[in-house]
Amino acid sequence: MTTDLSRFSINQMTVKQLELPQLVDACGQLGVSQVGLWREPVQRYGLEATAKLIREADLAVTTLCRGGFLTATDPGARAAALADNRRAVEETATLGTDTLVLVSGGLPPGSKDLRAARERIADALAELAPYAEDHGVRLAIEPLHPMYASDRCVVSTLAQALDLAERFPARQVGVTVDTYHIWWDDRAPAQIARAGAGGRIHAFQLADWTTPLPEGVLNGRGQIGDGAIDMREWRGYVEAAGYTGPIEVELFNEGLWARDGREVLAETAERFHSAFTVR
Amino acid sequence: MTTDLSRFSINQMTVKQLELPQLVDACGQLGVSQVGLWREPVQRYGLEATAKLIREADLAVTTLCRGGFLTATDPGARAAALADNRRAVEETATLGTDTLVLVSGGLPPGSKDLRAARERIADALAELAPYAEDHGVRLAIEPLHPMYASDRCVVSTLAQALDLAERFPARQVGVTVDTYHIWWDDRAPAQIARAGAGGRIHAFQLADWTTPLPEGVLNGRGQIGDGAIDMREWRGYVEAAGYTGPIEVELFNEGLWARDGREVLAETAERFHSAFTVR
Repeated sequence: MTTDLSRFSINQMTVKQLELPQLVDACGQLGVSQVGLWREPVQRYGLEATAKLIREADLAVTTLCRGGFLTATDPGARAAALADNRRAVEETATLGTDTLVLVSGGLPPGSKDLRAARERIADALAELAPYAEDHGVRLAIEPLHPMYASDRCVVSTLAQALDLAERFPARQVGVTVDTYHIWWDDRAPAQIARAGAGGRIHAFQLADWTTPLPEGVLNGRGQIGDGAIDMREWRGYVEAAGYTGPIEVELFNEGLWARDGREVLAETAERFHSAFTVR
Repeated sequence: MTTDLSRFSINQMTVKQLELPQLVDACGQLGVSQVGLWREPVQRYGLEATAKLIREADLAVTTLCRGGFLTATDPGARAAALADNRRAVEETATLGTDTLVLVSGGLPPGSKDLRAARERIADALAELAPYAEDHGVRLAIEPLHPMYASDRCVVSTLAQALDLAERFPARQVGVTVDTYHIWWDDRAPAQIARAGAGGRIHAFQLADWTTPLPEGVLNGRGQIGDGAIDMREWRGYVEAAGYTGPIEVELFNEGLWARDGREVLAETAERFHSAFTVR
């Protein structure tokens, strides 16, 4: 089967068992031309070394994951988070991509105030967004599924993410649309249109929804086609909203991580192709 | 400490280790005057026997949980679900309560169409709502947290529940407001006001949000006060919307189920009191 992968980007986390040179090599063999990277494995391999490796392989970097975690109330923790996000902006630029994905952070210990936490994110963005623009980087706020609201991300819907993003110019702040986090939300299609109209769809990611969810609900994101999400429908929404950029597949899945990484990458590319082929 | 339990109702599931006579006895000892019942333990003890036991103990039944699961496409499964819901209506009336909680059901096997599933619930309600009214019973659609959207309940927000309920008179169909399912939703306070204005808050339940979520995400509902939810805030919303009815505590929690049921009931009553005492 000929697989059209021109829009496909493999997020590094999907095949985290592959070290960077292996990932680059596997991409070359499979005709995958775009990757989404994560800060931790990049730092492990070395930032400059990663940039060189990627550049020499002629791979495009679609996003860097991730900045964020901006909800701390403690002044020291808050200053540390801002400093870390400035470094993330710099790393994004060094890697040759223009998009830094932001996961906002959960409630601080003991707090029950989602509203205040969301407002602290806006305050942090006011400091980070101009800094990002100076480095040619756009911040892409990713709403995470409401099941992460307390411990990982107080921004649970595209509407909330856009309410935050729209306080800033679109060249500074937009959103990440990830099917896994928004597929249940009947308001999401209209919010995708809103994001597109404002030029704020800065990243588009796919993962499928499968149950039962694992303990901790972090590492059960389904391989494309295995779950409840109609990928064609969601790709249709973002494209109707004017998005023509890369489509990253980002899976956190213990089952996939336990397998051979090259095999998982090949399967993911195949599933991507199948999901968008007219049946 | 004097505990004002006049609004408190213990949902049977919170202390499911107690058989019905034990539950009734414990309620009497603790001054708990209201219970929410579940169909399965009621059937196990016997419907008429339960009604008699409850009546003689002078307990009020605040809700029966639960009807619903109305999303099947298969005609046989659909007819069976409707018949089962008619029986649930009859059981509700026999137990002397006017409120049957509905959990809508998830996607049928292989389906990825949330919208169609939601529409089938409306079709089913058109058959069930007048039947319920004839028996003096109100249906209370419960939106469940979006993490249950595929396998348990395609109605994920109060807004969706009200969109369904408002197709029918409020005396036939309203909603269940449960903090566990809606606490993350910044639109929920406005939807509670909408529900109250329409006389559609038919039940109000509490559970707290604790993490990490357990595998399957069903039985990790936190004891009141242990989690991220500000119970005073949510009680404030429903009361500002005009609700003056019972407040059920409904916890699915393996840890609580492993303990002595009377002790858990006493603790739950105490937590209820503490949550609403001015600090």
